[in-house]
Amino acid sequence: MNERIWTAALVVIGDEILSGRTQDKNIAQLASWLNVQGIRLREVRVVPDVEDAIVEAVNQLRARNDYLFTTGGIGPTHDDITVDAVAKALGVGVIVHPEARAVLEAYYETRGGLNDMRLRMARVPEGAELIPNRYSGAPGIRCGTVFVMAGVPAITAGMLDALTGTLEGGDPVLSMQVGCWVAESEIADLLSATERTHDGSQIGSYPFFREGRVGCNFVVRSTSQDVLDACAADLAERLEAGGWPAIVGGIS
Amino acid sequence: MNERIWTAALVVIGDEILSGRTQDKNIAQLASWLNVQGIRLREVRVVPDVEDAIVEAVNQLRARNDYLFTTGGIGPTHDDITVDAVAKALGVGVIVHPEARAVLEAYYETRGGLNDMRLRMARVPEGAELIPNRYSGAPGIRCGTVFVMAGVPAITAGMLDALTGTLEGGDPVLSMQVGCWVAESEIADLLSATERTHDGSQIGSYPFFREGRVGCNFVVRSTSQDVLDACAADLAERLEAGGWPAIVGGIS
Repeated sequence: MNERIWTAALVVIGDEILSGRTQDKNIAQLASWLNVQGIRLREVRVVPDVEDAIVEAVNQLRARNDYLFTTGGIGPTHDDITVDAVAKALGVGVIVHPEARAVLEAYYETRGGLNDMRLRMARVPEGAELIPNRYSGAPGIRCGTVFVMAGVPAITAGMLDALTGTLEGGDPVLSMQVGCWVAESEIADLLSATERTHDGSQIGSYPFFREGRVGCNFVVRSTSQDVLDACAADLAERLEAGGWPAIVGGIS
Repeated sequence: MNERIWTAALVVIGDEILSGRTQDKNIAQLASWLNVQGIRLREVRVVPDVEDAIVEAVNQLRARNDYLFTTGGIGPTHDDITVDAVAKALGVGVIVHPEARAVLEAYYETRGGLNDMRLRMARVPEGAELIPNRYSGAPGIRCGTVFVMAGVPAITAGMLDALTGTLEGGDPVLSMQVGCWVAESEIADLLSATERTHDGSQIGSYPFFREGRVGCNFVVRSTSQDVLDACAADLAERLEAGGWPAIVGGIS
């Protein structure tokens, strides 16, 4: 088992998230993708379209994580300031990337041509590589361990797809769900005792209220399949022994 | 017009958000509620169920915002550590709140009684007041300008409802939407020129791809109804003049 834990942080950039207009979907999307790469999303910050706020978040989080992702603010309009802010955080200038310019020229050839505003989307921090975006012309940007992605979740999904398997990570976190029609407050002791018994396991408890009844899904996590299996089986047994039939796989 | 801007920050606490298991809904919910109170959500951090991470986020954000909210981690299980972390951040001890204890005793009277784990939900930082929760027994917690809320969105909604009208704020941010079947990259200049013409206005641009066509909703924001009306009308006129019929109210 690889013991090093690889971590990532995410900076979500956009007034639309902080105003409540848009429901963020990139946190959950990136988290799930990172799990598969063996990287843990360790912290997230949502910041407004304000350069200082972006610079502060990028610099604080990249200093203490292996990877840093941003989403949002890479479009053609006046409130899209992510590229300039990231360049400032990295202490480099901004250039027009020749390959990005060529991609945009091709994309807009049949869509009214590449105007000045559209050309903004070819601007990158000096030294950056491009992340392909199959959905629209504008590419994502990689600067070493910093990844600049789109705000629109479907476009970010395409960029993540292009990055799959290219980032070094550790052991993926495996998980298994056990559901039960029980109030979590009745079995809180049982949960923590089970977790303590299985070194390297972690049990999360997610209560719900459905069909007039109180229930709970327990998510067991571990980087070891053996620990995972043992802990989940033990948890199910203890629940059954307490008079609460457990549903392996969870209640959906 | 009241010129002081009141700000709030939110710390979302929970491994389930960072693992991608749960899609956060509290950011958008709190943001919308704060707007009505005349308070702007200025920044959000999502942190794991780790005491140091919670303490750091709470202390950094409460120092630079008028109000600080947390969501998550106030249930009865071993991973619910928010109360202890907030007390540590505030430099106070943790006590069992007599009123919270009474509320829980009444709630659990017909639900199997108040056990030790359930009693955990009556623990509060010293000096705290309770925020009523009509959905389940456990109350939210107010410590001065710090508000500790539930992770389950419906329960947090009830707590926010109980707080409505009790927090001092400034002028609410008003908004109006204008939609148009146009690519934002074609009218980026028009947008920034319109915004510059109307002091105190802000225009956000939210592109979408629907029914095989590219469109965009523009959200105009201002604390002044007059500025808002003038800016939205001007934007619609400029779009029409450019050959793009504008739909006031937006495209939904």
